[in-house]
Amino acid sequence: MSVGIPCLSTITEIRVALDEARSRGASVGLVPTMGALHEGHLSLIRAARAQNDVVVVSIFVNPTQFGANEDLAKYPRDLERDRLLCEEAGAHLIFSPEPGEMYAEPYSTWVDVEGLTGGLCGRSRPGHFRGVCTVVTKLLNICQPHQAYFGEKDAQQLAVIKRMTRNLDMRVRIVPCPTVREPDGLAMSSRNARLTPEHRAQAPVLYRALTAAKDLVLAGEQDAAQLDAAVRTILAEAPAGEIDYVEIVDADDLTPVDHIEGETLIALAVRFGDVRLIDNMRVSA
Amino acid sequence: MSVGIPCLSTITEIRVALDEARSRGASVGLVPTMGALHEGHLSLIRAARAQNDVVVVSIFVNPTQFGANEDLAKYPRDLERDRLLCEEAGAHLIFSPEPGEMYAEPYSTWVDVEGLTGGLCGRSRPGHFRGVCTVVTKLLNICQPHQAYFGEKDAQQLAVIKRMTRNLDMRVRIVPCPTVREPDGLAMSSRNARLTPEHRAQAPVLYRALTAAKDLVLAGEQDAAQLDAAVRTILAEAPAGEIDYVEIVDADDLTPVDHIEGETLIALAVRFGDVRLIDNMRVSA
Repeated sequence: MSVGIPCLSTITEIRVALDEARSRGASVGLVPTMGALHEGHLSLIRAARAQNDVVVVSIFVNPTQFGANEDLAKYPRDLERDRLLCEEAGAHLIFSPEPGEMYAEPYSTWVDVEGLTGGLCGRSRPGHFRGVCTVVTKLLNICQPHQAYFGEKDAQQLAVIKRMTRNLDMRVRIVPCPTVREPDGLAMSSRNARLTPEHRAQAPVLYRALTAAKDLVLAGEQDAAQLDAAVRTILAEAPAGEIDYVEIVDADDLTPVDHIEGETLIALAVRFGDVRLIDNMRVSA
Repeated sequence: MSVGIPCLSTITEIRVALDEARSRGASVGLVPTMGALHEGHLSLIRAARAQNDVVVVSIFVNPTQFGANEDLAKYPRDLERDRLLCEEAGAHLIFSPEPGEMYAEPYSTWVDVEGLTGGLCGRSRPGHFRGVCTVVTKLLNICQPHQAYFGEKDAQQLAVIKRMTRNLDMRVRIVPCPTVREPDGLAMSSRNARLTPEHRAQAPVLYRALTAAKDLVLAGEQDAAQLDAAVRTILAEAPAGEIDYVEIVDADDLTPVDHIEGETLIALAVRFGDVRLIDNMRVSA
């Protein structure tokens, strides 16, 4: 009977395990997650497994990236299930600390990326990216991976983490991985499980809207205002969906663009009840 | 004829040199400085030399820790002199990047320690410690030293850096080194050279005030208000000195104390013309 892959909960334990691996010359890949693993996470683990000798998955519902009115308490947690999924996907170690281990008192240090974090999700989630940057810095310092894997679904997070690691001279390669979708196009997310059946049925509208915008760009449309209008028209087909934002931005610095030329991100967030879904698509003229 | 120790100006060069050292199993000590080296810095280099196989001194006048009205432009720079001093003190490498190398555009990432940075020097130098924390994070990530050396003269900086490295799980031991003083008690500082002869003659008042306070504590005084008054009375003996602050704080969390019990810091800053001097002394009941 398998006892499963090691699930370590202290910083000391994971360091000892990874130091041992590195001392044998092993390359280390880190997949940072908040648990509630789905096919999107598993694709990150598989990518890490293909490129590294040792894959560590961190499972930590990071309190500092949730706002006061957000869904920290409701965020799904099931470590035993996650552990089996990690093992099946080829991970070697799980790091799943308690908040008190990660934020031992006195705690007062924060990492902030300015500029990239004011728009998109940053506008409706003040402090969110400060929490993300801080915990990712900590996880990178604890695990010292050669590569770390992030999903393109969280496009702003990916841009922020890339900027942060480059600005702070962190010695890690950030590997972006494509968004994984349900058969109807809905981007995989741990939050999908909290949608009501009615909302779940309407949720693929995000993907339909993005696909329609991409088709317009492929057909020659370069005017961001036209694309924005097309996206909103399709989103309006979902009566329960409340638009948080639709933004058309430069893919690197996330500043709004009027005219599609280089790599551009069409990004959106839509609320269904108290569940906020995000998605995005890259386009270029 | 000696060509002097290597003085590397790019992040890539210093990484290659230190990777080579670490691959031979060498321990690395980092002494971060802004140049204009004096006996205080040299004592850090000697301490690093005694505890590490390879000692790297960074010389970088970090623009992000200077306020708009501060002395960035006037800060003394003499790399050739510094290089000789580093060599004599036993350093093996100098890392002296240009600002454009350290803050390559687009740059927008900052590390902040809250709580410890609001009082003392933080009050009159908003943003100063954000700049210090950010550049120290970068230097630690670039050099990945086993030990890094900081002077106790900059007591708040030392407390902030210790907190930051602990909070962010940075793998480095922070080694505090005692303040080095001129024969008349004035703490060594690169800024001392900018004092007028008249101000230089008055500047030892900082040390006399701190020593008097320490003597009072040794004689049984535990009331912070009494100590504060005694310090200010002595500082008033220097007619050109303008007090920026006198604070009596807990040595770890830098919160003001009313009553001296555990490790306590008596810290002060005094301006002579446009030169701001700081000093401090640790006491405990």
